[in-house]
Amino acid sequence: MIELVLVGIGTGNPDHLTRQAIKALNAADLVMIPRKGQNKADLAELRRAICAEVITNPATRLVEFDLPVRDLATPDYRARVDDWHDAIAAVWKETILAELGSKGSAALLVWGDASLYDSTLRIADRVARVLPLTVRVIPGITSLQALTAAHAMPLNEIGAPFIVTTGRRLREEGWPKGVDTLAVMLDGECSFQSIATEGVTIWWGAYVGMAEEITLSGPLDKTSQRIIETRAEARDRHGWIMDIYILRRA
Amino acid sequence: MIELVLVGIGTGNPDHLTRQAIKALNAADLVMIPRKGQNKADLAELRRAICAEVITNPATRLVEFDLPVRDLATPDYRARVDDWHDAIAAVWKETILAELGSKGSAALLVWGDASLYDSTLRIADRVARVLPLTVRVIPGITSLQALTAAHAMPLNEIGAPFIVTTGRRLREEGWPKGVDTLAVMLDGECSFQSIATEGVTIWWGAYVGMAEEITLSGPLDKTSQRIIETRAEARDRHGWIMDIYILRRA
Ligand SMILES: C[S@@+](CC[C@H](N)C(=O)[O-])C[C@H]1O[C@@H](n2cnc3c(N)ncnc32)[C@H](O)[C@@H]1O
Ligand SMILES: C[S@@+](CC[C@H](N)C(=O)[O-])C[C@H]1O[C@@H](n2cnc3c(N)ncnc32)[C@H](O)[C@@H]1O
Repeated sequence: MIELVLVGIGTGNPDHLTRQAIKALNAADLVMIPRKGQNKADLAELRRAICAEVITNPATRLVEFDLPVRDLATPDYRARVDDWHDAIAAVWKETILAELGSKGSAALLVWGDASLYDSTLRIADRVARVLPLTVRVIPGITSLQALTAAHAMPLNEIGAPFIVTTGRRLREEGWPKGVDTLAVMLDGECSFQSIATEGVTIWWGAYVGMAEEITLSGPLDKTSQRIIETRAEARDRHGWIMDIYILRRA
Repeated sequence: MIELVLVGIGTGNPDHLTRQAIKALNAADLVMIPRKGQNKADLAELRRAICAEVITNPATRLVEFDLPVRDLATPDYRARVDDWHDAIAAVWKETILAELGSKGSAALLVWGDASLYDSTLRIADRVARVLPLTVRVIPGITSLQALTAAHAMPLNEIGAPFIVTTGRRLREEGWPKGVDTLAVMLDGECSFQSIATEGVTIWWGAYVGMAEEITLSGPLDKTSQRIIETRAEARDRHGWIMDIYILRRA
């Protein structure tokens, strides 16, 4: 039997690791690190640094694997993602078989937490269809927690609900019904530009939790342009960016 | 200048603490622990155990304070909570002045993460009005992450939004518009009984992340009664309960 442990590592600050995450990494026979060629956004270097810092068990082996690339020739978006997940599952399976054979535990470092806009659990399900596998999740600090911590702000108003959504949804569907607080992730296009700014406050952050962290906040109408410029400049400078924000209307 | 550090400790598992949380507790001059008389649900014992386990700096002092009680004579719910927060802020202020005087750092252990249905940040704002205070937040594992980890499940469907809400809202307003995934917190009444069960799956957890953890999941119609009974029994046995769940409709 193989155990696959999905270890939430937080959002780039090695100090986001929990004691549980550190124990799980040190208890694993194998830690698998994905590599996307020269792409800085794979953050492989950061994963290596985290492992070097927290793994003290000499028996834990690190192995890197090349992450398959999405086949842009597949026209349908959903089919493209499905094929890609299949290809990643195949590489995990091969790596596990080659390194562990039929028993032992393999760990994967998951950005933030595995529950939140992350495909690791779905890929693990695919592997579990072809290998006897149990999946265990170690929770991690999400980018949403890192954002609210950076702004020292509550996410919800007292007793009120909030929605977590994507940039695409915000652009296509506008402000969701029935909630005054919105957290937006996976937004490559500053989609806050698509909504009416009246009475709306934004709390924005890029690289939250990391040394590069940038935060901006204020009334959306007065802050929007500054975020767009700051984001473009930071992205050019670092070669990649991840950002997230909260919108609240009065 | 006083620094108040709100340290997210996760949901009752001492291994939920991050390296950042452990460093912050050890860097604090003072750690303040609330006490609610004989009430087991204050979890003061657990906070003491966490401190005993992770604080190695002999200069860090622990001090306990009695948490004021809500004045049930105040008829209006909102006013009652406001008064209560004022009273807690007054105790924090006294404790800080008595123990630190005008400079140093005081830490508070926040259940889960300070951003999520927690009043610590709002009380800290009150203290900041009367003392020169800076507030810093250390993010923690939330009960929502602990729940999804326990079920090894993703919170969102691919690219889809989700809402986080309270038991009261679910009872009073029903299933929110435009989302198929709902996370429900602060629910003392198994409010999932108030919605149509057709096509709905529930993933429920009590004491998530703790040694007492209980999880149940399945189609809502077939699982609802079992959760109600399990919850009542566990609550009797432990003298307190905290539970949380995710509902998803097909
Ligand atoms: C594929 S999702 C993964 C989220 C992750 N599982 C989590 O728990 O935060 C990537 C999105 O998360 C957000 N994100 C992740 N890390 C971030 C960081 N350090 N700063 C800002 N946003 C971040 C961004 O919105 C980004 O588009
Ligand atoms: C006042 S809120 C605090 C939430 C906390 N700040 C967090 O980040 O999870 C309390 C609610 O959180 C949920 N909760 C907290 N700890 C929990 C646990 N260990 N198991 C299940 N639910 C929990 C329950 O829904 C409970 O009613």
